Amino acid sequence: MAEQSLPVADHSASADESTSSGPGISRRALLGTAGATGLVLGAAGGAVGYAAAPAAATPLTSVGSTEVMFHVKHQPGITEGLQARGHLVAFDLTPGAGRKEAAALLRRWSETARRLMAGEPSGSDDTDVARDAGPSSLTVTFGFGHSFFSRTGLEKQRPVALDPLPDFSSDQLDKARSDGDLWVQIGANDALVAFHALRAIQKDAGSAARVRWQMNGFNRTPGATDRPMTARNLMGQLDGTRNPKPSEPDFDERIFVPASGSKDPAWMANGSYAVVRRIRMLLDDWEKLSLGAQEAVIGRRKANGAALSGGTEATAMDLEKTDAQGDLVVPINAHARITRPDQNGGAAMLRRPFSFHDGIDADGVPDAGLLFVCWQADPLRGFVPVQRKLDRGDALSQFIRHESSGLFAVPGGAAKGEYVGQRLLEG
Amino acid sequence: MAEQSLPVADHSASADESTSSGPGISRRALLGTAGATGLVLGAAGGAVGYAAAPAAATPLTSVGSTEVMFHVKHQPGITEGLQARGHLVAFDLTPGAGRKEAAALLRRWSETARRLMAGEPSGSDDTDVARDAGPSSLTVTFGFGHSFFSRTGLEKQRPVALDPLPDFSSDQLDKARSDGDLWVQIGANDALVAFHALRAIQKDAGSAARVRWQMNGFNRTPGATDRPMTARNLMGQLDGTRNPKPSEPDFDERIFVPASGSKDPAWMANGSYAVVRRIRMLLDDWEKLSLGAQEAVIGRRKANGAALSGGTEATAMDLEKTDAQGDLVVPINAHARITRPDQNGGAAMLRRPFSFHDGIDADGVPDAGLLFVCWQADPLRGFVPVQRKLDRGDALSQFIRHESSGLFAVPGGAAKGEYVGQRLLEG
Repeated sequence: MAEQSLPVADHSASADESTSSGPGISRRALLGTAGATGLVLGAAGGAVGYAAAPAAATPLTSVGSTEVMFHVKHQPGITEGLQARGHLVAFDLTPGAGRKEAAALLRRWSETARRLMAGEPSGSDDTDVARDAGPSSLTVTFGFGHSFFSRTGLEKQRPVALDPLPDFSSDQLDKARSDGDLWVQIGANDALVAFHALRAIQKDAGSAARVRWQMNGFNRTPGATDRPMTARNLMGQLDGTRNPKPSEPDFDERIFVPASGSKDPAWMANGSYAVVRRIRMLLDDWEKLSLGAQEAVIGRRKANGAALSGGTEATAMDLEKTDAQGDLVVPINAHARITRPDQNGGAAMLRRPFSFHDGIDADGVPDAGLLFVCWQADPLRGFVPVQRKLDRGDALSQFIRHESSGLFAVPGGAAKGEYVGQRLLEG
Repeated sequence: MAEQSLPVADHSASADESTSSGPGISRRALLGTAGATGLVLGAAGGAVGYAAAPAAATPLTSVGSTEVMFHVKHQPGITEGLQARGHLVAFDLTPGAGRKEAAALLRRWSETARRLMAGEPSGSDDTDVARDAGPSSLTVTFGFGHSFFSRTGLEKQRPVALDPLPDFSSDQLDKARSDGDLWVQIGANDALVAFHALRAIQKDAGSAARVRWQMNGFNRTPGATDRPMTARNLMGQLDGTRNPKPSEPDFDERIFVPASGSKDPAWMANGSYAVVRRIRMLLDDWEKLSLGAQEAVIGRRKANGAALSGGTEATAMDLEKTDAQGDLVVPINAHARITRPDQNGGAAMLRRPFSFHDGIDADGVPDAGLLFVCWQADPLRGFVPVQRKLDRGDALSQFIRHESSGLFAVPGGAAKGEYVGQRLLEG
């Protein structure tokens, strides 16, 4: 991924910049290097796009000041680090709304996303909920579901990759919380910034689309841990140890549709496919297991993510290693054994989830788990083969339940002056 | 509040301390000055109480490293700054459980709270969800509801202040989400740290108590804004402008039961009373108002919190000021006029809320608003008179709905070797 841009800039006021005042334009060096698609223009320090707060005594940190760029090769919200707060929301076009209304909606949404990600108000009717805060790494990502194309007369543009996922025997899917014509992923390191964006996106929908389902999630707050990469989930497991890394040479090929020469329709150039699953964790059952039993289910040490065959989190798993009794050290049905990319024809997906916790159910057990979001160039080579294998014999399966499912085509990032999906809707 | 302690210490690794390793004990200067009740003993830097994370590259910031002390004069979670994530949970004692079981439960809970607030595992069955993270300003606060005292044969120890709140005409209370024998407030600047504590507290309940209701909330992430004090709520309003400040001479008197000489039972020395209301915001209606109409409802400028009579957020409201037409500049039914302490016999409460957002209702509108938590030495002089006045003529009332209510007696902090409520349960 030599050409992968790192479309993130840090707006925090450094010593030589914090003295500038007002909405002055300052050019900052990007954190990325080669392939960056543009420089960020933004206000110096403080609450970007708003009048300065009175008597400001607490400086913005990078938590608030980091801005992710909207106009980039790949849509934001795919390769950026996990954010502390997220919203997933699906919309259905309203009866009577078609291609024209969808195009106008995506134009509105793109402009709102661009403004909010830059820390600006959404418009004259901004709700002020994000006022005073920096962009806080806000990302807004747009996708199209299978049903979108028939609603808009665009069946011929529907990617084959959007064909419905196969049924898995362990699925207990709630259709009302699955699928949808349109999908929006919102993430930010501040919960009010994320909520503000959610309301603006919802208001933009106007009479063209209505919310089908909506979910809230979270990850660690930046600075709460010194672990550099891998997050923990609500089972206490390190989650994402084997995620492909943008530094790997085949990263782009695995995660993104190429700019040309693929079997995908041309409008999907530089896009990706998102599989979204609400995975409930059966925490009362899970937490009754001993540490050793939990580690056998996963195949890794809970403390540090190392495979049971030894080493550290980064050490390759020894699939053949046996103990004194001749048993495999990493059990044959261990979750991490089954999901290893080199056991799945090299298939890889980029998992970028949020945890969720929606209160308690009737038994007092948290309705909690993982909003699993994974990204791949081709779901039939990413999510599907792995899930098929998990479906047949994953030791973890008795502690989780897939409760909803979505599959969305996420086009490439919009060029300046363009909106997301324009090449589909005006192609 | 000359004797008010500031029971917060910062564990972030400073240059001269970050080289110490292992669970070494280091004594840090407290941020507070006079009246501090003790020094924090804690591990230096890193993930307190856990093995060091491998290849740590990202340092903990104060977001993660800040520890709030458990053994203090007043329970934690009252005067500390707003936290990014919060859980409110009420428990009822199970049939057959009485004073003895309650005492054992509070002992377990206090020990768990002390350990988790120090960044240690809850015990040998720790779920590992907070592993690698610092204490992240975790606070755990315990209270007793009206029904607790009859369940445990302790009616004679029930404070008069726990008498049920009067009915307000605007209430639409869900009894299943109101009241409760026991109440626990959990707050932290990291969502997984907060969830981890919630599960540990729930597990401690064992067979002695079951969850009655549970709510999740949030506030801004530290560093997302440079506004020093006042938070915004989901209506976009600055919320808490007139909160009493610990630096004010009558702060303790208004918020805390005195150590002696009050009409409260002796076990409530240094305690406080919490009123908890789930206040739904009718955001679709609110957001339809113009900015000017919203400001008239509140009586303050949305941008900066200044009263409509002029000045800044800190300027006293001019209640008599009229415009050219002779109309009051701050309308007679403006929310901020009605709630002003000097209009309510000096009554004051310390509002320390969380916002909430529990997905969408059937109309696609967010089920969102404020988990209002306010603290006072006497609810009949704090919450009740203000709410009575609001009930009669608050312009804000048509945009909010009180959906649940609780009133809890929160005893003083536990001394070392003591558990919270011990003076009640073993008195």
